[in-house]
Amino acid sequence: MSELLQQRELETPELLSRDELRARLMEIGEERYHHRHPFHLVMHDGLLTAGQLQAWALNRYYYQSRIPIKDAIILSRSDDMDFRRAWRQRIIDHDGDNGNPGSAGIDRWIRLAEASGLERQRVIDCREVLPGVRYAVDSYLALVSNGSLLEAVASSLTEMFAGKLIALRMDRIRKHYPWLSDGLGYFENRISQAPRDAEFAFEYVIAHAPTRAEQELAISALVRKCELLWAQLDAIHFAYVQPGWPPPGAFRP
Amino acid sequence: MSELLQQRELETPELLSRDELRARLMEIGEERYHHRHPFHLVMHDGLLTAGQLQAWALNRYYYQSRIPIKDAIILSRSDDMDFRRAWRQRIIDHDGDNGNPGSAGIDRWIRLAEASGLERQRVIDCREVLPGVRYAVDSYLALVSNGSLLEAVASSLTEMFAGKLIALRMDRIRKHYPWLSDGLGYFENRISQAPRDAEFAFEYVIAHAPTRAEQELAISALVRKCELLWAQLDAIHFAYVQPGWPPPGAFRP
Repeated sequence: MSELLQQRELETPELLSRDELRARLMEIGEERYHHRHPFHLVMHDGLLTAGQLQAWALNRYYYQSRIPIKDAIILSRSDDMDFRRAWRQRIIDHDGDNGNPGSAGIDRWIRLAEASGLERQRVIDCREVLPGVRYAVDSYLALVSNGSLLEAVASSLTEMFAGKLIALRMDRIRKHYPWLSDGLGYFENRISQAPRDAEFAFEYVIAHAPTRAEQELAISALVRKCELLWAQLDAIHFAYVQPGWPPPGAFRP
Repeated sequence: MSELLQQRELETPELLSRDELRARLMEIGEERYHHRHPFHLVMHDGLLTAGQLQAWALNRYYYQSRIPIKDAIILSRSDDMDFRRAWRQRIIDHDGDNGNPGSAGIDRWIRLAEASGLERQRVIDCREVLPGVRYAVDSYLALVSNGSLLEAVASSLTEMFAGKLIALRMDRIRKHYPWLSDGLGYFENRISQAPRDAEFAFEYVIAHAPTRAEQELAISALVRKCELLWAQLDAIHFAYVQPGWPPPGAFRP
């Protein structure tokens, strides 16, 4: 082996084992996932008004409405039929299918928004969504469009952390905001879907990141996904909870 | 004339005259331009700390750094050599030219950041830029990439309102933050460049929006530009001024 090769080998950080990679991802989730965001803390403590919950449901609808579009972009980027068949389920989860009316995640989110007191059409219009929420969500579409397929898939690894947050949220909503309980169908479905999606994405990353450099790209995609989830709540929190102001044209409860 | 055509004519809103269009644009500026943003009000009242001004200079650098990229996208979308020759000047203003060292708007902005106490490399890296600022700026690139050329040009009409804000800001910085005065070269240049750019864009819209529907597209592009300027300051204000929190990984003064 030449000296140059030896030197390069020394400089190349080692591939993380499956357990090490999982630990790194969990660590990022612990530090950066939006379960830590003050908006969720306040929500879970029962301190939000009905209007603030409306603002959350209406703004987050924009995120929900973009999920199947995001997944269709990912679908369009893979030439592996097995991958596409597996990933397609995510689109079905959110868009529903004709044989199973009411199954669509998007419809279930709309029912949550209706339970909060909003009219369906006002939610679907997305005209009153905060620009900051819109930009953060659109950055997700840009990430899965412009990054590598590995990064696009890895950005969905936040599902590793979703189950725990959703279980807590359902419990606290039933306790503090019982009038919203009829709208919890979306979360009921996600409780089983999220771990399945997380496991698939994790196995994909294990199989498609054969170098440490690629593992780092996947890790960084997860960081970016956490950032955009966090930024959505920042926009909502500052416009509606912490004395702030919605910008001209945005939803006012 | 058929009844249908008559009816359509009745329903079509009339083309705005030059003066009416200008008045509509000015009205949008009055209501939505970021001269009204609380961050600027607090800045002009002399109430910002050095660290808060650093956060502003560092975050807004990301916007500055994207301006010539935005203008290159617009350049790339026109097949009119006269238009391209005129628009090219904006790129020169921000990127400078070899015969005129120190002329680049971006360099001048870096000097402002340095005057605030930041190291050049830390600013250029953009690693500590708030995600919310990044998304808002990137949405500007998406607007000029995905909208029509008319909308792309119209989005620069905010320059109609820039001169007044810049004059006020320079005055207040000299008064309240005299240690920043050495860094005002960027604004000195913009005072003459902004009205020239605004006039060009306005004449372009007059010439290239021959229907009311197109005029409305131009007006709406200006609204969207105001929104993304506003959202940048929201992110900065809430992370650094109004008791808030920079997200994990963002700049801390």
